[in-house]
Amino acid sequence: MSVELFRLTASEVKSKIQAGDLTVEEYARSLLAHIKERDPVVKAWEYLNPEQVIAQARKLDAIPPEQRGPLHGVAIAVKDVIYTKDMPTQHGSPIYAQDAPQVDAGSIIILRQAGALLLGKTTTTEFAATVQGPKTVNPHGIAKGLTRTPGGSSSGSGAAVADFQAPVALGTQTGGSTIRPASFNGIYALKPTWNAITREGQKIYSLILDTLGFFARSVEDLQLLADAFELRDDEAPSDEFQVEGARIALLKTMVWPQAGPGTQAALGKAADLLRKHGVEVEEIDFAPELQGLPEWHATVLHSEGRSNFLPEYRASKDKLHEFLVGHVDNVNKIGKREYLDAFDNIAVARPKVDEWLARYDAVLVPSAVDEAPEGTGSTGSAAFNAPWTALHVPVVGLVGFGGSQGLPVGVSLVAPRYRDRHLLTVAKAVGKIFEAEGGWKSEL
Amino acid sequence: MSVELFRLTASEVKSKIQAGDLTVEEYARSLLAHIKERDPVVKAWEYLNPEQVIAQARKLDAIPPEQRGPLHGVAIAVKDVIYTKDMPTQHGSPIYAQDAPQVDAGSIIILRQAGALLLGKTTTTEFAATVQGPKTVNPHGIAKGLTRTPGGSSSGSGAAVADFQAPVALGTQTGGSTIRPASFNGIYALKPTWNAITREGQKIYSLILDTLGFFARSVEDLQLLADAFELRDDEAPSDEFQVEGARIALLKTMVWPQAGPGTQAALGKAADLLRKHGVEVEEIDFAPELQGLPEWHATVLHSEGRSNFLPEYRASKDKLHEFLVGHVDNVNKIGKREYLDAFDNIAVARPKVDEWLARYDAVLVPSAVDEAPEGTGSTGSAAFNAPWTALHVPVVGLVGFGGSQGLPVGVSLVAPRYRDRHLLTVAKAVGKIFEAEGGWKSEL
Repeated sequence: MSVELFRLTASEVKSKIQAGDLTVEEYARSLLAHIKERDPVVKAWEYLNPEQVIAQARKLDAIPPEQRGPLHGVAIAVKDVIYTKDMPTQHGSPIYAQDAPQVDAGSIIILRQAGALLLGKTTTTEFAATVQGPKTVNPHGIAKGLTRTPGGSSSGSGAAVADFQAPVALGTQTGGSTIRPASFNGIYALKPTWNAITREGQKIYSLILDTLGFFARSVEDLQLLADAFELRDDEAPSDEFQVEGARIALLKTMVWPQAGPGTQAALGKAADLLRKHGVEVEEIDFAPELQGLPEWHATVLHSEGRSNFLPEYRASKDKLHEFLVGHVDNVNKIGKREYLDAFDNIAVARPKVDEWLARYDAVLVPSAVDEAPEGTGSTGSAAFNAPWTALHVPVVGLVGFGGSQGLPVGVSLVAPRYRDRHLLTVAKAVGKIFEAEGGWKSEL
Repeated sequence: MSVELFRLTASEVKSKIQAGDLTVEEYARSLLAHIKERDPVVKAWEYLNPEQVIAQARKLDAIPPEQRGPLHGVAIAVKDVIYTKDMPTQHGSPIYAQDAPQVDAGSIIILRQAGALLLGKTTTTEFAATVQGPKTVNPHGIAKGLTRTPGGSSSGSGAAVADFQAPVALGTQTGGSTIRPASFNGIYALKPTWNAITREGQKIYSLILDTLGFFARSVEDLQLLADAFELRDDEAPSDEFQVEGARIALLKTMVWPQAGPGTQAALGKAADLLRKHGVEVEEIDFAPELQGLPEWHATVLHSEGRSNFLPEYRASKDKLHEFLVGHVDNVNKIGKREYLDAFDNIAVARPKVDEWLARYDAVLVPSAVDEAPEGTGSTGSAAFNAPWTALHVPVVGLVGFGGSQGLPVGVSLVAPRYRDRHLLTVAKAVGKIFEAEGGWKSEL
């Protein structure tokens, strides 16, 4: 039986096309056929036009080999809070239903220049800012006869990559909108250092928190995207990271009391596997003066949401989610003084946390509360992600563990700001161990 | 002789229309006639379609009085780095020549909802990021037979307001792009606290520095805009500020050696006038540990420009200004470590500076090096503005002083973050004194 092309990773697709073993059109047709079959149940897409995808693929195939970009033919799904010139951008909001600004986000310009094949736009919670789930259903849940959320706010991007409808996808994270759906969908993700990649053309919730993120089914694919976006550390890490003898800290964080049995078990097993492979694992905890991080994050989020959703509030308050109306109305009565204190406290924490994290090759942390919660009404809690988003540090979501229902449970690695490439190298080596020995396998 | 309608301030226009003494169309026609006469020499506009303005005016006139917004009929010029659904947005860049994304910036949505009349798009230096002047000529220079820059990067907005082609305008500031053209054009301006107003749909140079700004010919008009954008302090200031007995510090800043004779004289005279009116003026200086602010600003600016201009670099490097190509190529070899140090040093400075500034009713600082330099090739130095932009504090540019050529020289007042409304109240009282007794009068 021939390989199912839609199952290839981005790196595999890239190699095959480069070797002349595959055209972009053949690959696109395989993905589109798979999407056609799966879309009625997974519902990951807000917009996808097969003819447009084929036309794009043919154009890419017509480019002479020597002029092809580093992502030539690599298909990518785009979260629908990111502007795309030739597709609608609806932000998961009735205010922007069918809206189609004729403009590409900065990330989209970079992807197009690199030769990526833009498949379409994936579902998101409203403005990537609420936890009210869109129509998308967790594909692993479907495989087990369970109706579960794919997480959010990057709901469709996470589900599409898990379900082999796209090898990679763009998401965003302001609280836990990339790492949480990665955990619920059993896939890899990178939330890069804040501001390392342009956010031009990506809807604003909070300037100081919003971050573009990547989803993939392998760390190599995250590295491929990191290359295309010129993510760079000051010192390029060596290609291979030696697990044996490495130092990786275990950090349950102040949110640990919220961890469910799935996450408790996953983190424990991850630490055990690391020790088994010769890693020196030291358990650490945030200093007392940093325990306020979750609260500071919430204060900053709600305050910045206040100014950033004022336009929609003024234009169409009745179509704006009550949570966001609440930001503008300042229902939590957050003063500017309180906002500035939270903003400044986080800013002071960043270099301290960098220094602390730098003592280890990486730090192992939870990705989410547990496996995906029931139903699709709520995309779940971002409690375990918010501190890292606030701290601007890179986070890689890893797979390999499962919860009580056999659904995936992720764990994450973090590193100091602008050590994204180093972190990916560590994640590649560690991820192989977790995937092989963590005990959970995708049934998709 | 009947009053020339185009000379009215925004507040006066608002009152006249509200009283039924003026229609938006009559007002628009007066502005358009004046623009037609002046545009060939001042060249403030990148896009202005008189028919579109009249059509908009008629629509506004058709709105029943009880449904009218707080800026009903107030004409406004928009810097061409801010998206407008019905007009091109070209960013002063050949890459975006004739480009017209079908989307409104957040600020534009707010203005439209408030009933403002959007006149057109004003010139900007490339991406509001270089000092290479656009076609615009300083109107005060023209009046004296001199070819001078209006400053930048908000070149057209500054010139249009000074030349009575618009009562108010939107600008942006990343270095000194609002306060500097205000100084060169002899008009008022507000650079609000960073992030107090949404920057959605405004081209990104640096996330942590870019700020939307307002131009006007009176502080009352700045207050009118501040109301429309819901700029709020924790405690609303009383309407009237008592100059007599007030405490205003004089801060020449670490950039003072760059001040020309015009700014030296203006700041000295401003301090003298304050003392004459019973203000307790104390000269202060930045603490030694804050002397790095200008350098930190430059480091952050160039580093953030590196990621934010990567899309244009990839798509059209040959059409990108070499200064911005240099950011992406990192010609200054700024490491991530150096960037983070600068970023974090500024962050640590912010609350300290807030506390220091809070000891005074306001702090008097220079607006620019001197009156507008010769020619239109360079928009001048932002040296006196950059520290305040980095610190996120509100700045109000005031008028009343002149340089050796009789061109305007501004001075500014600053206050702690989120004391914008307080600062405007102080600026209103102080501005009246400077305008009356500073010695410079507009000949326009």
